[in-house]
Amino acid sequence: MGELPDEYFPPPYYETIGIEIHDIDDGFAVGELTVDESVSATTGEPLAHGGAVASLADAVGYWAASSAAGFAITPTIDLRIDYLQPATDDLRAEATVTRQGDNVGSIDVDIEIDDRMMATARGVFKMDGDSDGSPWDPEM
Amino acid sequence: MGELPDEYFPPPYYETIGIEIHDIDDGFAVGELTVDESVSATTGEPLAHGGAVASLADAVGYWAASSAAGFAITPTIDLRIDYLQPATDDLRAEATVTRQGDNVGSIDVDIEIDDRMMATARGVFKMDGDSDGSPWDPEM
Amino acid sequence: MGELPDEYFPPPYYETIGIEIHDIDDGFAVGELTVDESVSATTGEPLAHGGAVASLADAVGYWAASSAAGFAITPTIDLRIDYLQPATDDLRAEATVTRQGDNVGSIDVDIEIDDRMMATARGVFKMDGDSDGSPWDPEM
Amino acid sequence: MGELPDEYFPPPYYETIGIEIHDIDDGFAVGELTVDESVSATTGEPLAHGGAVASLADAVGYWAASSAAGFAITPTIDLRIDYLQPATDDLRAEATVTRQGDNVGSIDVDIEIDDRMMATARGVFKMDGDSDGSPWDPEM
Repeated sequence: MGELPDEYFPPPYYETIGIEIHDIDDGFAVGELTVDESVSATTGEPLAHGGAVASLADAVGYWAASSAAGFAITPTIDLRIDYLQPATDDLRAEATVTRQGDNVGSIDVDIEIDDRMMATARGVFKMDGDSDGSPWDPEM
Repeated sequence: MGELPDEYFPPPYYETIGIEIHDIDDGFAVGELTVDESVSATTGEPLAHGGAVASLADAVGYWAASSAAGFAITPTIDLRIDYLQPATDDLRAEATVTRQGDNVGSIDVDIEIDDRMMATARGVFKMDGDSDGSPWDPEM
Repeated sequence: MGELPDEYFPPPYYETIGIEIHDIDDGFAVGELTVDESVSATTGEPLAHGGAVASLADAVGYWAASSAAGFAITPTIDLRIDYLQPATDDLRAEATVTRQGDNVGSIDVDIEIDDRMMATARGVFKMDGDSDGSPWDPEM
Repeated sequence: MGELPDEYFPPPYYETIGIEIHDIDDGFAVGELTVDESVSATTGEPLAHGGAVASLADAVGYWAASSAAGFAITPTIDLRIDYLQPATDDLRAEATVTRQGDNVGSIDVDIEIDDRMMATARGVFKMDGDSDGSPWDPEM
């Protein structure tokens, strides 16, 4: 994990649901969600709840956006998730910036188990970092 | 909470992040997310992580869809979330079925703090309940 | 039609597919699509092609965004359309700004026939108007 | 154009805005939009209106879905478009089915000019073809 940049901080939420970020590079990020019963939609065998999958997508999307923006705070503006298959094992997600503007960036996320696509996500993040005052200023 | 139907079951994930479902009625559901540091994007003051907001949206959307489909299993096909303001307090979400087809339903979700809109979500859920075998059959 | 502001201009595309804008007010716009065979998915009875419905949504969304931004150029960043029913008659669409930020705005669109909802759309538009040079600068 | 299957029919809307489908294969389709002033957002230089881009995405998405479903009628359930750059020349779009279920399929669309990505789209289409009665039965 030595490769994570100094600007990286894990939000408390990551520990709550079991997200780890593995790699962050300019406009790109990789992370993982441990899929056990605590993030499951059912009891018994692990089956990731859609919200946990969306959380992983948002997390890697954030670091792809933030790293492309000089590690500014980059709040999510919108996010779409498409669920392709039920996720019964640990999930790996890769996020890539597909457009980088002055104010707004677009991000694609692939969410996989062993190179099989489980879900995809696409979102728009604020990129200009002018959220003075609070960490996430309402006036974006 | 006596008003919840017998078919209601809280997935393990709800307890992990603090979601409670308050009301489920034919094509409609209401739930709440307790916004404390455990679901926050930052330490210090509570500020709901986007993934936690998405999780609440998915949860109430699910019960709106499932209740409209005779409490069948209704997996999420896709979900879009729009973040309008940072959520620094407990969130209440209402989901409504806007179209009910034989196989697929469309759902709208409003996510509020004290009647101020914090986020909106819109998604499509599988409604026909023919997921025999596993709880969430890949062949949807 | 006297109520349309001086800043209003109808793009050539509107005439090609039969869009008329009826009302534009601060953060709000109303328009109509004439649904005849020329915008249909089939021959015979009129049945609006999904792309024509999306075009109407984008058009009213644009004027809601632009009017809220002092009639700046406000390119669409993303747009989601949900199709609820087949549209076999003229469509009326209403767009409303749901969040207005410095750089980006969120818009909701309802698309109806005689007050019955045919489709909904939700999108994000660039609001800051700093597209100097070309009318739609790539660096947004 | 000899390669298009017998089941292919061009909706009237295609001619109205200048869409041509070039290739349709099991779960895959390619098409083109001629970008001239008639589909432009402004007068003068061609600049494709967002609705015209969305129309092209819907069109190729439809044929990817329909061809994967034995050329059943496959209405769009929802579609998201992300605009990455202004489109000032003819657009080529490729659609691919990313998940094929019994009732619903997910489709990805890339929209390019000379291999540069101008926009992306992602949507869900009804795949089971049981729209008896009208060409697009409301009870989906």
